[in-house]
Amino acid sequence: MKSEIKIGIIGLGGRGYGLLHTILNIEGIVVKAVCDNYEDRQERAVKFVEEKAGNTPLSTSDYKDILAMDEVEAVIVSSSWADHIHIAIDAMKAGKYVGVEVGGAYSIDECWELIRAYEETGVPCMMLENCCYGRKELMVLNMVKKGIMGEIVHCEGGYRHDLRDEIVHGRENRHYRLINYMNRNCDNYPTHQLGPIAKILNVNRGNRMLSLVSMASKARGLNEFIKKSEGEDYDLADYQFAQGDVVTTIIKCAHGETITLTMDTSLPRFYSRGFVVQGTKGMYQEDNHSIFLDELHGTEDEFSWKKNWNNADELREEYDHPIWKNYNPDENAGHGGMDDLVLSAFFDSVRRNVIPPIDVYDMAAWMCITALSEQSISMGGAPVAIPDFTNGRWINREPGHEGYFSLDKVE
Amino acid sequence: MKSEIKIGIIGLGGRGYGLLHTILNIEGIVVKAVCDNYEDRQERAVKFVEEKAGNTPLSTSDYKDILAMDEVEAVIVSSSWADHIHIAIDAMKAGKYVGVEVGGAYSIDECWELIRAYEETGVPCMMLENCCYGRKELMVLNMVKKGIMGEIVHCEGGYRHDLRDEIVHGRENRHYRLINYMNRNCDNYPTHQLGPIAKILNVNRGNRMLSLVSMASKARGLNEFIKKSEGEDYDLADYQFAQGDVVTTIIKCAHGETITLTMDTSLPRFYSRGFVVQGTKGMYQEDNHSIFLDELHGTEDEFSWKKNWNNADELREEYDHPIWKNYNPDENAGHGGMDDLVLSAFFDSVRRNVIPPIDVYDMAAWMCITALSEQSISMGGAPVAIPDFTNGRWINREPGHEGYFSLDKVE
Repeated sequence: MKSEIKIGIIGLGGRGYGLLHTILNIEGIVVKAVCDNYEDRQERAVKFVEEKAGNTPLSTSDYKDILAMDEVEAVIVSSSWADHIHIAIDAMKAGKYVGVEVGGAYSIDECWELIRAYEETGVPCMMLENCCYGRKELMVLNMVKKGIMGEIVHCEGGYRHDLRDEIVHGRENRHYRLINYMNRNCDNYPTHQLGPIAKILNVNRGNRMLSLVSMASKARGLNEFIKKSEGEDYDLADYQFAQGDVVTTIIKCAHGETITLTMDTSLPRFYSRGFVVQGTKGMYQEDNHSIFLDELHGTEDEFSWKKNWNNADELREEYDHPIWKNYNPDENAGHGGMDDLVLSAFFDSVRRNVIPPIDVYDMAAWMCITALSEQSISMGGAPVAIPDFTNGRWINREPGHEGYFSLDKVE
Repeated sequence: MKSEIKIGIIGLGGRGYGLLHTILNIEGIVVKAVCDNYEDRQERAVKFVEEKAGNTPLSTSDYKDILAMDEVEAVIVSSSWADHIHIAIDAMKAGKYVGVEVGGAYSIDECWELIRAYEETGVPCMMLENCCYGRKELMVLNMVKKGIMGEIVHCEGGYRHDLRDEIVHGRENRHYRLINYMNRNCDNYPTHQLGPIAKILNVNRGNRMLSLVSMASKARGLNEFIKKSEGEDYDLADYQFAQGDVVTTIIKCAHGETITLTMDTSLPRFYSRGFVVQGTKGMYQEDNHSIFLDELHGTEDEFSWKKNWNNADELREEYDHPIWKNYNPDENAGHGGMDDLVLSAFFDSVRRNVIPPIDVYDMAAWMCITALSEQSISMGGAPVAIPDFTNGRWINREPGHEGYFSLDKVE
């Protein structure tokens, strides 16, 4: 029987409330406190905890009330993007193990502050990048670690998700995307695609990202959407959004690998994380869910690949990651199980008091891409340097998190 | 009955000899002369013309012999990359309508020289970019011209073709790719993917490409391939190729569109031109051959697109380009018909003595990407400016080529 972990949840919008469902489905987790700026969200969360778990959590609009609770061992931060890092810093300083939802950084300095808070307190901080635990991503990671793809040379990823409705209705929904799109132009959401790739390329553990360039397209998608859905007279119908519809970023790594990231959230499209991994012996591509292995497919007619679309499912038996082999997520597991897995990895780390599988250096390295892409775009695509948040320790850092949920090695 | 066109072909390697098959299949074209540096290639070509057409063409290793022939009205240049532009210039100066195979430029200056030769002589020059006449590309062009995709915001293309065998055996094959890969690092083959996109974005006719950034991955694919196919002792087994395996380029256009190009020719993979076109009302993606239209698919579950893979074929009835609607290429048509169509477009232009559908300004704008990507890569991804080869006339140039083969408007 596992020991209980007492937690608080800070931020109960769509994402925080969704996480609450997954968390209360995980054995041994007790939600002792909930926090949100809005009372109705606090009430909704309290009611849900009461119904589902039987206890009544503390309810507050000031997250510091939660950090002051002795019994709370860990906190989950699912606030708006701009609050992730400073709340995480305060949590570490209060001695609370902290799990932070995904997003991008607003400055390089706040990333350094995050690192310093960790190095000063020694309290672990994990980014809850659920896509690192996606079945496709983990299967490819497994293949890479086994050497099936050879030496990895190039990866691609995207956050290609039509969010026009959510963005445009940000005022009614109290969602922060709208004000970001009105004011900023950057890859504002790099980690879903970059996280799994960074693990594949051993970023922060033998490799690092050196520099990037970014360019943004014009912004047209939201205006067209608004005029169609809200009418020509809607106040934002002709608003000149700062955020380009498609932002493309190229990253160069210390060992010569390139990574292409595409953020594409305000045009009509199907969902895709545009995941591509290419090595000297094979490749994976998400958009037709296929694996090409030189040994298996090298002699096939190069122009007739279509018959192999979706063949990754056939290779699952052989290459599925151990985490997924016997895992059957239920309907509360969130995003097909990724949420349950990343939260379980977090709670496992808290329980064992070990460095989490996605640590504070990963978090800083991945989140800083947002601020750097903003810089590069604003300077016409000029290359900008990516900081080494490990101050040189990336060269020989050993895998941090051992065990079942490790993303650095496959057990 | 169409009038005869007498032509010469300069360069009879794999591509030139292949084109000869397609050309002799087109009515009214008489091959009066062939040229290659190698005698065996000359002999092979002469023999093929004799067998197929009944006449014996002049055979030479000096292309100027062909340019001096009064009866030759037009020449096809299918030499090695480095000879395309200077032969095209000499051809224009000799008054020969010239069709040039694809490739990239080695300097910006040679692109300007090409432009000057055209402006001084008034002799038309066409780039034979067959992919502009690909069925998928033309169908998407047709949809774009009809407004089905809305305002176009972002496009992607790639030359993603495993050429390791051809590159590595460049000495035996007398192919120029090998020496290029040994010495240069750039997107050496941008036009298959860029050509169709440039036509979609009205480049040189109301739009232009402003600047680009490029980054290259490390070079590992050829070494791994050589060691496996030729053994560890092969002289190039540990050669440090200059050419990175994957080169990614982002281009920004005057009207705010972005274009991402990927050259990926020395890793194991399936063939793809990675064609993506995204507008405010819909998109096309080659890698699962699907079309997403907001009006048709906007209400579908965003995470279950797989059922629509390959739906572009279902929409063909409605959106197929007029050129393809009643076209049934035979086995000599080359690359599924694209070669036949681009050559037919060229001969149509020669016959009517009009500006070709892919003119000298297109050729310079597309080919210069190679030299500029080399510059950007060498400077760590720094943005470089793309010249305006029209000297401002792009702003209000009318569609040039009218009629059946036009790529600027759909009849």
